[in-house]
This record gives sequence, structure tokens and C-alpha cells, in this order.
Amino acid sequence: MTPAESTKAEELIKDLNWRYATKKFDATRKIDAETFAAIEEALRLSASSYGLQPWKFIVVTDPEIKKQLSAAAYNQSQPGDCSHLIVLARIARVDQAHVDHYVDFVGQVRNLDSEKKAAYGGMLTNFVKNTPDAARDVWAANQCYIALGFLLSAAAALGVDACPMEGFDKAAFDRILDLPAKACHSVVLCPLGYRSADDHYADLAKVRFPVSEVVISV
Amino acid sequence: MTPAESTKAEELIKDLNWRYATKKFDATRKIDAETFAAIEEALRLSASSYGLQPWKFIVVTDPEIKKQLSAAAYNQSQPGDCSHLIVLARIARVDQAHVDHYVDFVGQVRNLDSEKKAAYGGMLTNFVKNTPDAARDVWAANQCYIALGFLLSAAAALGVDACPMEGFDKAAFDRILDLPAKACHSVVLCPLGYRSADDHYADLAKVRFPVSEVVISV
Repeated sequence: MTPAESTKAEELIKDLNWRYATKKFDATRKIDAETFAAIEEALRLSASSYGLQPWKFIVVTDPEIKKQLSAAAYNQSQPGDCSHLIVLARIARVDQAHVDHYVDFVGQVRNLDSEKKAAYGGMLTNFVKNTPDAARDVWAANQCYIALGFLLSAAAALGVDACPMEGFDKAAFDRILDLPAKACHSVVLCPLGYRSADDHYADLAKVRFPVSEVVISV
Repeated sequence: MTPAESTKAEELIKDLNWRYATKKFDATRKIDAETFAAIEEALRLSASSYGLQPWKFIVVTDPEIKKQLSAAAYNQSQPGDCSHLIVLARIARVDQAHVDHYVDFVGQVRNLDSEKKAAYGGMLTNFVKNTPDAARDVWAANQCYIALGFLLSAAAALGVDACPMEGFDKAAFDRILDLPAKACHSVVLCPLGYRSADDHYADLAKVRFPVSEVVISV
């Protein structure tokens, strides 16, 4: 490692130790536009299987909607008090139409002729054909969890607090946000913003099993 | 944003644009111990729901085993040619024993008395009680996908190439790595190392749907 690489590695680990699941946000502090744009871009750049990006990211800043979503998250305060609430949603169905749309877009970005596009699309069509609907829905949700990892890492790097949340009423979220009409379904939440000065969770020691327990070297 | 924050945001986005799913690794280049330790630490620091960390990370560097795993990944070269192959595995079952173990560990790290430990554990016991086995297995796998996001972000920050892979024979991986005996099951792979100079995928334009398509502002 060069000294510059060492510094970067130290900073990465420091940032990841700084982050924690924020239980109480400072409702008065908002993420500035430039910082949020960087987080949104990191989210957009997330990896997904085949590159299919089977997701929508709902960014909620409307105070009234955030209040409703807080209620639908079993009255947890974070969706209401955060600056930007991200709802990571999977598209309703990864189907041939999505594959066609994606392959067209790849062709456009990479300037592929129709033969190359057909070759590229064939593999994806087989995936759609050979995977049951329900399994593709689970698969799409999995990709949202990858994106959540990118989102949490980016937020930590930029000093923005976050709280990944699975505890919410998905049907209520979908209804409040009118997601079926947008052809997607909520999977997992990530309120973003800044920790409240009196969130005592911020001071608790981080609990991670030791390497000796979670890593198996072969 | 301060100038320092701007620089960090630019670097983050540059790193994420630099990464791509590496199709061909340089089999002669190995990740140095210090760099790998930082990546492993980032992985260990990944977020998980309730903090339960229902995972094991199998780090494979044995050339003979890597070759077998490459064959079990439909002969894709990356598991064999990479420097370190990470198999992200879920623990076989998130059960009361895991909850008890976790709560004991939390108590140890945070110096909790038995009353506080019981309060902490109650919520987790309810989760185990009220969630069917199969749903908890899916849930544990989801957490591995979050960890994959952390892993890919960390590797990109440290200039290490990676290739997330879902296309492999899970039963064969479990068998070759003897995972049932280690009470876990493979979920997703991430070979790490350095791109081969002739991996032409490195030069292709990144394909991501525009913000206007994937972000819905509310």
C-alpha cells in the first residue's frame, strides 16, 4: 500500500465505524442539494445482477407524506424526522418488456448494432423465461439490498446519517406512495439526515462479531 | 459542502464509475495483506437488520479449491483467476440460539446487566417466533446482499476490482466448501483482485438508467 492508499483505507474504516442506525434524527437539519446529489448518484451507480437495475428509488421530502409514512412504519420517528427518506423499491416484474427496454438502452449507450443487441438480450431473455415470476420478484428485491449497501456506504463517506429499516407496513407504504401505479413495490427504507444531539444510540459501542467468528479462510 | 467534502464526494463518484463487473482477472496479481485487511474490515462492519449479522464470509485463496469453484460456477474464470474469492453465506438458521449468542455478545461489548439484555433480547425473540423459518432464511440472505453492497463499495474505494456473481451452483459450492458442517449456505459470490489488461469489459461505457427514470421525488 502506498501512503495515499493507507490514508484512504483508514478513512474508509473510520467512516464505517462512525455510521450507526440512527434512531433519532434532528428534524431541523436538511441535507444540502450538492451532498444529496452525490448520494443519489452513488445509489444510481449501484451494481445489480446483469446490470438490470430492477429498481426505483422514491425520495420523499414532503413533510405531510413523511408523517404518514412514519405512522405506517409502526410510528417510528425516523421517516418523519429525517431530511430525505429513501424508499428502495423493486419494479413490479422483471419481464421481457424490462429486458427489451434495458437492451435498447445498452445499445444506445454502447452504440451496438442489432446483432450484438440480440446476442446480449438472448441471455437475459433466457433468465426471464427460466426463472418463475416469484423467484424473479425475490431476485429484484435482492438487488435493492445491494443498492442499500451502496447507499449506506456513500452516506457514511459523506458524513450523512442513515437508518436502514425493514420494519414498516409495505402495503401501506405502497398505497400512500401510489407505487402500484408506478409499477413498483417497496422493499426497504433508508431515512437520511443528521443525528439528533440526544440520540444516545450514537454513543453506544458498535457490536460486530470478530473476524475469527465471521470469516472462514480456505 | 466544504471544499474537503466536495473533494470526497467527487472521489466517491469517481471510484464508483471506475468499478465494473470484472470479467477477466489478472491471475498473477494478488491483493496485499494490508489492503485485504481493510476490505475484510469494511465487510465485517456492514449493516444488518437488528445488527444480527446472520452471515459467514468464506475467503478462498487456495488455488485448487478456487479451480473447483470456478468449475462449479459454470466454468466462469473469475473464481479461479481472482486473488481472493469471497463467498457471502447466510447462517443456516436465524434461531433462538443465534439470538441468545448475539444478545450475550451485545451485553459483553456494551456492558449490559441481565435486565437490559433481556429487554434487548425480547424483541429479537419475537422476530424469531413470529417469522416462519423460510422467511427468516430469505431475510438472512437479504442481509448478505447488503454486505455485498458494502464490499463492492469498499473494494472500489481501495482500487480493487470485483465481480458480484449470482451464477453458480450453490449446492456444489456448499459441498466443496463443506458449508453445511459450518452451519451456513452460500448466497452470492464476489471475486476480488485486479482486472486483466485485456478485459475489454473495462473499457465499455457504464450503463445506468438516468435519474429521471429511476428516481421518483415525492
